[in-house]
Amino acid sequence: MDIKVNLEGLPLTPEEIESTRGDAAKAMDQLWSGDVPMTGWVKAPMNQDQEMLERILNVADIIRDEAELLLVIGIGGSYMGAKAAIEALPRFEQGTEVRFLGINFCNEYYREILEEVKRKNTIVCAISKSGNTMEIRAALEIIKPVMEEKYGSREEAAKRIIAVTDETSGSLRAEADEMGYVTFPIQGDIGGRFSVLTPVGLLPMAAAGIDIREVLRGAEAVATSPLWDTTAADYAIARYLMNVEKGKAVEAVAFSHSRLAYFGEWLKQLFGESEGKEGKGLWPASLQYSTDLHSMGQFLQQGSPVFFETVVTVEKTDQDIVVPAGPQKGMTLGQLNDAMVRGVIKAHMDGGVPVCEIRIPELNAYTFGQMIYFMEMTCGITAMMLGVNPFDQPGVEDYKREMRKNCGLEG
Amino acid sequence: MDIKVNLEGLPLTPEEIESTRGDAAKAMDQLWSGDVPMTGWVKAPMNQDQEMLERILNVADIIRDEAELLLVIGIGGSYMGAKAAIEALPRFEQGTEVRFLGINFCNEYYREILEEVKRKNTIVCAISKSGNTMEIRAALEIIKPVMEEKYGSREEAAKRIIAVTDETSGSLRAEADEMGYVTFPIQGDIGGRFSVLTPVGLLPMAAAGIDIREVLRGAEAVATSPLWDTTAADYAIARYLMNVEKGKAVEAVAFSHSRLAYFGEWLKQLFGESEGKEGKGLWPASLQYSTDLHSMGQFLQQGSPVFFETVVTVEKTDQDIVVPAGPQKGMTLGQLNDAMVRGVIKAHMDGGVPVCEIRIPELNAYTFGQMIYFMEMTCGITAMMLGVNPFDQPGVEDYKREMRKNCGLEG
Repeated sequence: MDIKVNLEGLPLTPEEIESTRGDAAKAMDQLWSGDVPMTGWVKAPMNQDQEMLERILNVADIIRDEAELLLVIGIGGSYMGAKAAIEALPRFEQGTEVRFLGINFCNEYYREILEEVKRKNTIVCAISKSGNTMEIRAALEIIKPVMEEKYGSREEAAKRIIAVTDETSGSLRAEADEMGYVTFPIQGDIGGRFSVLTPVGLLPMAAAGIDIREVLRGAEAVATSPLWDTTAADYAIARYLMNVEKGKAVEAVAFSHSRLAYFGEWLKQLFGESEGKEGKGLWPASLQYSTDLHSMGQFLQQGSPVFFETVVTVEKTDQDIVVPAGPQKGMTLGQLNDAMVRGVIKAHMDGGVPVCEIRIPELNAYTFGQMIYFMEMTCGITAMMLGVNPFDQPGVEDYKREMRKNCGLEG
Repeated sequence: MDIKVNLEGLPLTPEEIESTRGDAAKAMDQLWSGDVPMTGWVKAPMNQDQEMLERILNVADIIRDEAELLLVIGIGGSYMGAKAAIEALPRFEQGTEVRFLGINFCNEYYREILEEVKRKNTIVCAISKSGNTMEIRAALEIIKPVMEEKYGSREEAAKRIIAVTDETSGSLRAEADEMGYVTFPIQGDIGGRFSVLTPVGLLPMAAAGIDIREVLRGAEAVATSPLWDTTAADYAIARYLMNVEKGKAVEAVAFSHSRLAYFGEWLKQLFGESEGKEGKGLWPASLQYSTDLHSMGQFLQQGSPVFFETVVTVEKTDQDIVVPAGPQKGMTLGQLNDAMVRGVIKAHMDGGVPVCEIRIPELNAYTFGQMIYFMEMTCGITAMMLGVNPFDQPGVEDYKREMRKNCGLEG
């Protein structure tokens, strides 16, 4: 477990932190107990289904051999983790390009993707527990005739559609069984936003050429680390106290590595959807340094003090590009990046901005797996300390119901 | 002027709104007076320099003819507007691909861009008032030897470098004069985040194949519209009241059109950097619907009520893709998108979320120009109502100073 958390830049006394350790420990005990519904992800790194993993790797090999494009049809937790991994991690040369459909109802976006499907050898991977989500259903119904046209028949198209879905129920399961799609199960005890280390995230990641065994090894290293409890609890406690005791409305998580931008989007879902209920929760925001210092930097330094900042830094980065002339002559980009991030943290702390720092030694599949599990556990602890259920999302049905009505479907 | 603002979903009485109209009108008078420094953008749409515009169009023609890649070196206001336009708008087939450097110190990001420069016919466009910004200077010093290597000599490389910079002073101006770069001026009375309708934004947009005359015509239509004052003031007043009177900490601007995602980033800079000072301002957030309803939807519906929502909808979208089967059979994606966004607004309002709606008739160069000017004017009014100077950014020097120290340069 290589993730470090530094709370020294937060206006929290050791007594304040100690006073909440009991609650954090209790939350962690509950998460580990197996008694809380939807906590299958907690012990998953230690209980990996090797047969399933082999099957994922085999199917991913076939995708990489046969397809130029893997079109993932998924929304929310069904695609954000895979997208975050694919943007963050180096890949084998031969990785298949992965694109995402079903993430909107945008005609122009669809048109581009459909053109690409016509040009490229394509495999479709639909990821949805039920298959009934409006975005997913529309994407599937639109893509199927395109695949049939391209590959000559319904049967040939069906050979190129994979379904990651509920093991027994739902419209996507029924369709997959009828058409003979290759399928992978969505476990009943792991919710969408906690599912990136299941087939939901692992299959697209492997197809893209990411070493998913390393990702899983990273998650396992965190879950089995003796230092683990303290580190995760530290960050969870800090988030809880900055929100409830210090009245901060927003957590701005800033990444010093440009490849982590979409990890920030994944994190916003994880934190926002787990904690944002019963009128509670920190508004999750994400920033990329240094670019956002030239857009949000003024607000961060002197704007309304409604937020605290969590800076995620990567200690070791590639150093092969050197500035050959000018005032920064001889410095590598990595050194400049370090100078930037240390400068920001100092300027913000001097300006009275509360800063929490999370350090990871370098960015690779192993540390990425660590970050996923670390953030999931932090999220579970903070939500439980806030007194909300981290694993439900009772509010997301409301717009869906209104939308169905607007479409003339049942409410 | 085709932009409409609907405040009915906000908990503001007509009396509250009326009571602030005087302050909004006063702010607008100041903006139009010409007496406030850095308000050159206000009258720019009516006072277009036709000769400059012709020169931009000519240089853009040359870029499109000769270069596969236009590498823009810029950060903050020097690139965000152009990037927003290029992602939002349809282009001529022959538009040159535009990529951005100098937006970070990320070795991996640079490596990709440098590989691309080696493969593709490239023109570089450096955009910086001074040329001293650390990110920009590093990018320039790194790219110059690559261009010299590729094109055989310093002189040949210099023919392929354009500088958009101060007319007389700064290191980039000095370099441009010495090396004979093609140059365009950065006006002294227009700040970076208000500069998208100057050569800063217009040159990359034109090179990418965007009809910049239409963009400017849109801005002019807003600036000269008799209805303009009320509409802009409405939105500015709403933002002011929701922040100061209703205590909201966050404005979440949600876009129903996926092509407007980066416009949201541009807007965050505009609002955040203009208003976020003296401990004031709304934390600017942006969302994309429907994808973010599956990540932030739970928080929006039931989370901490620290925010209000501004939904930007596009009334007319392309309708050529139809769902051919399933429960949504026969509906176009455009219809589904409308059903989604109407559903969200209703669900959020029913759930007690304050919702402001901004409607634009369709997304094209003309309405994009309208949106730019509309948002700039709104921003100026709100900031002045808050009692801060919309046009300075005193806090952004702090991290730069600390970073220079960390690099062993003068503080």
